[in-house]
Amino acid sequence: MSPELARFLQDCEQDFQQALPALCQPPGSDCPAVPGGLAEAGAYSLGNGGKRIRPVLCHAAAAALGAADRTRSAAPAHALELIHTYSLIHDDLPAMDDDDLRRGQPSLHRAYDEATAILVGDGLQARAFEVIAGSDVLDAAQKVAMIGVLARASGMQGMVGGQYIDIHATGTDMDLAALQAMHQLKTGALIRAALALGGIAAGASEAQLRALDDYGRHIGLAFQVVDDILDVDGDPSALGKTGGKDAAANKPTYVKLLGLDGARQEAQQLLQAALTALETFGASADRLRELARYIVERDR
Amino acid sequence: MSPELARFLQDCEQDFQQALPALCQPPGSDCPAVPGGLAEAGAYSLGNGGKRIRPVLCHAAAAALGAADRTRSAAPAHALELIHTYSLIHDDLPAMDDDDLRRGQPSLHRAYDEATAILVGDGLQARAFEVIAGSDVLDAAQKVAMIGVLARASGMQGMVGGQYIDIHATGTDMDLAALQAMHQLKTGALIRAALALGGIAAGASEAQLRALDDYGRHIGLAFQVVDDILDVDGDPSALGKTGGKDAAANKPTYVKLLGLDGARQEAQQLLQAALTALETFGASADRLRELARYIVERDR
Repeated sequence: MSPELARFLQDCEQDFQQALPALCQPPGSDCPAVPGGLAEAGAYSLGNGGKRIRPVLCHAAAAALGAADRTRSAAPAHALELIHTYSLIHDDLPAMDDDDLRRGQPSLHRAYDEATAILVGDGLQARAFEVIAGSDVLDAAQKVAMIGVLARASGMQGMVGGQYIDIHATGTDMDLAALQAMHQLKTGALIRAALALGGIAAGASEAQLRALDDYGRHIGLAFQVVDDILDVDGDPSALGKTGGKDAAANKPTYVKLLGLDGARQEAQQLLQAALTALETFGASADRLRELARYIVERDR
Repeated sequence: MSPELARFLQDCEQDFQQALPALCQPPGSDCPAVPGGLAEAGAYSLGNGGKRIRPVLCHAAAAALGAADRTRSAAPAHALELIHTYSLIHDDLPAMDDDDLRRGQPSLHRAYDEATAILVGDGLQARAFEVIAGSDVLDAAQKVAMIGVLARASGMQGMVGGQYIDIHATGTDMDLAALQAMHQLKTGALIRAALALGGIAAGASEAQLRALDDYGRHIGLAFQVVDDILDVDGDPSALGKTGGKDAAANKPTYVKLLGLDGARQEAQQLLQAALTALETFGASADRLRELARYIVERDR
């Protein structure tokens, strides 16, 4: 990772650490306060951040389009992380993936209780749309476009649909096409939305949005292929979670279908395709290029 | 109930029965299909409609402001019912209120499974914001205003916050002020949002929105007071659910705090206050006036 990217990720994380937990306690005397325990539980999940890939991609997409700073991509970036965090909280529930740990900490329903985890997830989803609607630097047309993209990407024809397929596919056979289709919904749709939202924030043309989407489609799949590789071949202490879980749960994975070497080749091909999608962009897209490499070469 | 109101409710219900279940299977070749089982489960909940108070109030508020038909209030009305339906699905879960029946039918996690119920709820919430963003008869500023109101009303400082307080208050003592504060969040906020969204759809002034909100605040509380009365004094076959459940769960209720007669008086006073709030409106608000009476005098 270049010093520039490291610095950029650090700057982003500093903002996320400050801004995201505070979103659980919205200011304003005209609206009632969030109940204390609920705000605290929400802040617990938002503060325990992971790679923050989605909001970082959103900012990097805006930069690729010439945005001078993160001002206009801040609201959509925060909204993306709110949606991603709510989905992890609900995915960890006993009725879903039943995970006791998330990023090395007790998952929310273990740290609090199941009802709180369900409600925090529901509340973070609403807050995501509210954050975009309430931005004072985006115009109404941009907000509507972003909300439409984010709702579709995270809804039944996107992330939620992918999770539904995943839950019901465990223990069944799935070929490569079906596996890819599931991941395009489960993780791919929100990653593509991250690129679209950054592009909209910076006034991208239709052609530029298509190029960003093409990039997002490939790195979204690459992200999942690498996740599958790390589950088999990763260092549990770096991952902050137990490895080998997919195989134990008899989940369909890229490694299962392609073998470890085949999966590594697939990740490299997806990386190349993502870089090709950015060919028409100049040096302003270098951060997106480096993020693609980071996603494929990461060890956690 | 007047024949006019009965006809209006019937017309609304006909639209809801047709439009709402179809929202689980959004058209458009550019987006992936919703997985079949997920769409079916969503349609199950949306088709098994209750009183549809919120979308009906939204349409009636638009009519009070002079809207000639339901065209411009359709998207927000559908969005309100999507939010309400998702909240019922999640409230019924074992970790929350643990209800096996909803409107005389198995609740969604009983008819399907818990994971499906969590995911359908999540997906319906996203769809609510998508429906408003995607409307082709509202302008962008109206959509943004509606989405902001709906997200706040349904989020942690609204409906979700109220449900959090309710879940954690069962078995504890709560005085009248605390009970009202809880219901203003749990059910009141979304009912007030229904009025605001109908008002925004019809181009209401600030003063008109305040009057609608004042009306909504009072009927929202009245609605809950009557719910508490019916739980003690209602006909289980008309209600489609088991009565006496609140007392059995040792939940704080208006009847417990005010007695049955005191609760009936409270409902009448709230009805009068709601009607007073509409004083500056002419005959176009008669539907809202009749709905207020219907809410207080209903038997289910």
